Amino acid sequence: MTYCVGLKIDSGLVFMSDTRTNAGVDNVSTFSKMHRWSKPDERVLVLLSAGNLATTQAVISLLDERTKAPKERAPSVMKTSSMYQTAKLVGDALKEVIHDAAPAGQNADAFGASFILGGQIRGTEPRLFLVYPEGNFIEAGPDTHFFQIGETKYGKPILVRSHDPKMSFEETVKLLLVSFDSTLRSNLSVGLPLDLLYYPRDSYRIGFEKRIRQDDGYFRTVTEGWSNALKSAFKSLPDFKP
Amino acid sequence: MTYCVGLKIDSGLVFMSDTRTNAGVDNVSTFSKMHRWSKPDERVLVLLSAGNLATTQAVISLLDERTKAPKERAPSVMKTSSMYQTAKLVGDALKEVIHDAAPAGQNADAFGASFILGGQIRGTEPRLFLVYPEGNFIEAGPDTHFFQIGETKYGKPILVRSHDPKMSFEETVKLLLVSFDSTLRSNLSVGLPLDLLYYPRDSYRIGFEKRIRQDDGYFRTVTEGWSNALKSAFKSLPDFKP
Repeated sequence: MTYCVGLKIDSGLVFMSDTRTNAGVDNVSTFSKMHRWSKPDERVLVLLSAGNLATTQAVISLLDERTKAPKERAPSVMKTSSMYQTAKLVGDALKEVIHDAAPAGQNADAFGASFILGGQIRGTEPRLFLVYPEGNFIEAGPDTHFFQIGETKYGKPILVRSHDPKMSFEETVKLLLVSFDSTLRSNLSVGLPLDLLYYPRDSYRIGFEKRIRQDDGYFRTVTEGWSNALKSAFKSLPDFKP
Repeated sequence: MTYCVGLKIDSGLVFMSDTRTNAGVDNVSTFSKMHRWSKPDERVLVLLSAGNLATTQAVISLLDERTKAPKERAPSVMKTSSMYQTAKLVGDALKEVIHDAAPAGQNADAFGASFILGGQIRGTEPRLFLVYPEGNFIEAGPDTHFFQIGETKYGKPILVRSHDPKMSFEETVKLLLVSFDSTLRSNLSVGLPLDLLYYPRDSYRIGFEKRIRQDDGYFRTVTEGWSNALKSAFKSLPDFKP
């Protein structure tokens, strides 16, 4: 499985993804699920992927090849004029890959994949999209500032309760690590290391990137601190009186 | 959907279940998912159910009818000599109901249901079982003190982190309400009121029973207090330093 989150904050976009892929618990590998295309001072695009690894890799490869052979008929994510057009390209690539797989008489559901796309193109606002396995998509708005894909449930309650678009990047990373820690503890198929990326609004450059490993000092501070803080929070509530 | 938890603590067994059933979001009803059979000073049995409502009601009816017609060939849950035998009866009743439904050419998966069975029979220990949709079952042991059925993921992280069998009944209710609150906020198909039952070890009587409604004072204290306590816990951790 997989766990990826894309968050819109006032100062930009923050992305985090795990790196574990598995075909059964006895076949586990590490693959990055975070892909980026950028042209400094013009556009930054970040794509997080969940689902069938063959499908997600095929979609990324298809999009990637088109950026390198700009004369091809199909459009490139490096040439789109808006994030909406970019999301449509991702959705179309996904439909194409699923369609190619289906004639082999396989059940297309098994090839399912979903994506979070975020970024900014000069002259437009930063935007964040969730691309469904069917290739259609929705956009984050003023009421919903984040999207999750993969194993979303364990880590959702803390995001729902604590997320605020006014949060700084530094506080958002803390929130994401708490959400990822809850997921890592509950589902073996979500695993370290984690990939973190920050895109500061109107910068048209990747602002910060880091791979967070098991021995990362801040990650350990958050996971240990959170266990203790939760226990204190729980103790602070009054017990039930029958 | 449904959310039910059965917990083993040193002083006995605690059960909590929601009451919402739905066939689509536009067809919602309230049904208790907590069923009890008891003979004071001899046995207390509690059964929590999740899954297809027709299946769970058929299983309960079948078990219930047998307690009232003791001359029937099939055994009754009021006559079993151990909790293991009782769990086997529940599993067998489930298999019988699923088998009856299957010949109609329906997909039996759609009729799936699972149960948490807990209780104590004089001369034996209090025991807690999880009965799978296939009718087989597992028992809580020294390393796993609780079972969840239905929409289990949102409410699991807090149970995993905070549960301790040394907890009192009063503290366990607090823990369960926090876990249910996380689930209620995230999944519309889990709904109030909640049913709570406490069986004190070696009492052979139901110790405490309550239906917790939206306007319950303690429930409101926990849900509001938990939101604030979580925010403080989150604030108490240091922010990320890039």
